[in-house]
Amino acid sequence: MIFDICILFLYLDPIHDTIYSIQFKNQVLQVFISDLLIILITAFIGRLLAKKIKQPMVLADLIVGLILGNLGIIELSETMHNIADIGVLLLLFSTGLAVNLNELNELAKTSTVVALLGVMIPFILGFFAAHLFGYSYLVSIFVGTSLTATSIGISSQVLTETKMIGMKIGTLIIGAAIIDDVIGIIAMGTVVGIAVTGNLEIASLLISIVLTITFIVICLTLAIYFFQAISNSFIFTQIGNYQILLPILIIGLIFAIIAEKIGLSLITGTFMAGLILGQTRLSKEAFESVSLIGHSFFIPIFFVTMGMQFDLSTFFSMGFFALVFIFLAIFGKIIGCGSGAKVCGFSFRESLAVGIATVPRAEVALILANIGLKYNVITPNIASTVIAMTMVTTLITPTLLKFSIEHLNKKKKHK
Amino acid sequence: MIFDICILFLYLDPIHDTIYSIQFKNQVLQVFISDLLIILITAFIGRLLAKKIKQPMVLADLIVGLILGNLGIIELSETMHNIADIGVLLLLFSTGLAVNLNELNELAKTSTVVALLGVMIPFILGFFAAHLFGYSYLVSIFVGTSLTATSIGISSQVLTETKMIGMKIGTLIIGAAIIDDVIGIIAMGTVVGIAVTGNLEIASLLISIVLTITFIVICLTLAIYFFQAISNSFIFTQIGNYQILLPILIIGLIFAIIAEKIGLSLITGTFMAGLILGQTRLSKEAFESVSLIGHSFFIPIFFVTMGMQFDLSTFFSMGFFALVFIFLAIFGKIIGCGSGAKVCGFSFRESLAVGIATVPRAEVALILANIGLKYNVITPNIASTVIAMTMVTTLITPTLLKFSIEHLNKKKKHK
Repeated sequence: MIFDICILFLYLDPIHDTIYSIQFKNQVLQVFISDLLIILITAFIGRLLAKKIKQPMVLADLIVGLILGNLGIIELSETMHNIADIGVLLLLFSTGLAVNLNELNELAKTSTVVALLGVMIPFILGFFAAHLFGYSYLVSIFVGTSLTATSIGISSQVLTETKMIGMKIGTLIIGAAIIDDVIGIIAMGTVVGIAVTGNLEIASLLISIVLTITFIVICLTLAIYFFQAISNSFIFTQIGNYQILLPILIIGLIFAIIAEKIGLSLITGTFMAGLILGQTRLSKEAFESVSLIGHSFFIPIFFVTMGMQFDLSTFFSMGFFALVFIFLAIFGKIIGCGSGAKVCGFSFRESLAVGIATVPRAEVALILANIGLKYNVITPNIASTVIAMTMVTTLITPTLLKFSIEHLNKKKKHK
Repeated sequence: MIFDICILFLYLDPIHDTIYSIQFKNQVLQVFISDLLIILITAFIGRLLAKKIKQPMVLADLIVGLILGNLGIIELSETMHNIADIGVLLLLFSTGLAVNLNELNELAKTSTVVALLGVMIPFILGFFAAHLFGYSYLVSIFVGTSLTATSIGISSQVLTETKMIGMKIGTLIIGAAIIDDVIGIIAMGTVVGIAVTGNLEIASLLISIVLTITFIVICLTLAIYFFQAISNSFIFTQIGNYQILLPILIIGLIFAIIAEKIGLSLITGTFMAGLILGQTRLSKEAFESVSLIGHSFFIPIFFVTMGMQFDLSTFFSMGFFALVFIFLAIFGKIIGCGSGAKVCGFSFRESLAVGIATVPRAEVALILANIGLKYNVITPNIASTVIAMTMVTTLITPTLLKFSIEHLNKKKKHK
């Protein structure tokens, strides 16, 4: 709102419009370009160091962001936020393009089992822990729900770095994380509905579920045929090499907006767009160009800005409940998703990798904390705890997951 | 300033920081993603149509922007401005990478002659026309100076589309436009100095000239050796395909900021960075990746937002002086630069193409209008005239230049 007024202020009349916007633009541009340069240079140096000490690059990005943010070297601007958001959209787009759809179909049941256990067990643990600590049912539901949805970005990036996206275990992790994200978002919608209206709105819950299933079914059937046909049409055959990415990005954004309109996340949309385009003639070109534009610009910025939002002072006010909560956040997913994978016939080490990959939480937990505070359902203290949980789970996952995947690969080679 | 306060407002304390920024982010993000989608889709459709009727794609972008802006379909956000600015930086970066440095050196004298005549003749025409219409000396100097500097983006894009960047005539055009931009910026600095202090500040003028020459000499000697050496180092040999663009973008941004610090434009910096990297082992990879990321995302957005800033209502208040001024703007460059090329031995048709390519004006003219208004040197009416001139010269150039270049190619083939 305030921001709208600021922008409005710049659009008063023809001449002053142009004149003011030039002045405004030059100042903003200078700050933006130097911020951008600082982020890109530090991320690049961080990544080189990470490579030297065999740590995942995404950890380097997060730590670089943590330092830049907490030392106040850069303040996050609206532009940087938006560029970061394009980053995570491209990350899931390229993940969708790299996933093997046949294998994903084969693993559909397993992914669902893993996702369901990975949602239920952390929810139950969070709910009862909060209740034992004396919080009300509603607060306990909020706390439990904040543990349900995996933030898929971190694992997606680590799987890309370790070249595991197209492998069986990578497919399972991505499949489970997407399903768990969808369930988490629907659960969040339901819980928020309860908090705002005081009732469980079964009708809107059902509508969400039906819309989601319809969307996914259409994506995996009609949309694939449609885009297979269109990829051979003049639109894609007549345009030059450097233009091919433009229509591909358009398709990704269209799916992102559709997904968002029916109540899912934008990234679920670009992931589905990636899955669909992965089945067309454009698969290789799309993957390469999306990966190039993503991994060399937008995605590092996404992870650095994610790190910048980690406010270390959050930890100073942490109590005993926060420690328990973070512990449950980590082991809830490892036990939930891990046991799901184990039940479906994966080895212990594979199941452990699946469990670790689903540990990071972010968006859903943060939005719940946001809405919970706004409607006075939770206290600032609990909101802090949730934020600290997202920070810890995000920061520990890259190293653990890389280690566990590499261990897995070594094992296989020995056989 | 107002914007700073808005941003500051979001950084109050740890929890509220995170919480507010989520709320703020989601609203802004939704608007941003749908604006982005509208711009990309309309640009893509416009470009397909342009291809069908054999018009330059950049004209399509401008017209699309003109429509989106004047119908009020999209309001330009800070993010879109910043993304557009990255677009023009990448455009000049890829132009620098594509230019043949040996040929540019051979044509250095010719380019300088073309640029000098192309600065002097429009200045003289503008100055005397304004004076004849009864304006004061100072106003006439402002008006004359606003005609000096070519806006290189349009011509650069048309040359890219017609694959003329590496050719002799393309090199001459780019060389002349860069020199003329540098002269224009120094002239602007001088004129603004006169307007603000009332004196011609010879010392700062000399410092500008010395710094500029030093920068260009270092770029073309030491910097080339340095980056030839560094391109073989571990930084570029150890990183994967999808990471190669990151250090390349960093180098481009560093040169942009250096250029800006010594008083040149950011785009002169990325152009020099492109020239330098074009002499290293990385030339091909850099050109391909910069072109891909630029031409499929940032550059179309740059031209569309340029079109969006064309306010058609500016034309309604136009008087007779504006018509004369626009006429002089067009023919000043065609005669100035064209006669320069002709004197240096180019054919009539080649000289005409060089003249047309240097017609578009934008940044320098708009900044002059801005500062002139701010210090009450010029009236809003003259500022309007200058803005209308930038619109007309920008809109007519793509078609004229494409036509004249294609005519040239046909002629050559007939021989």
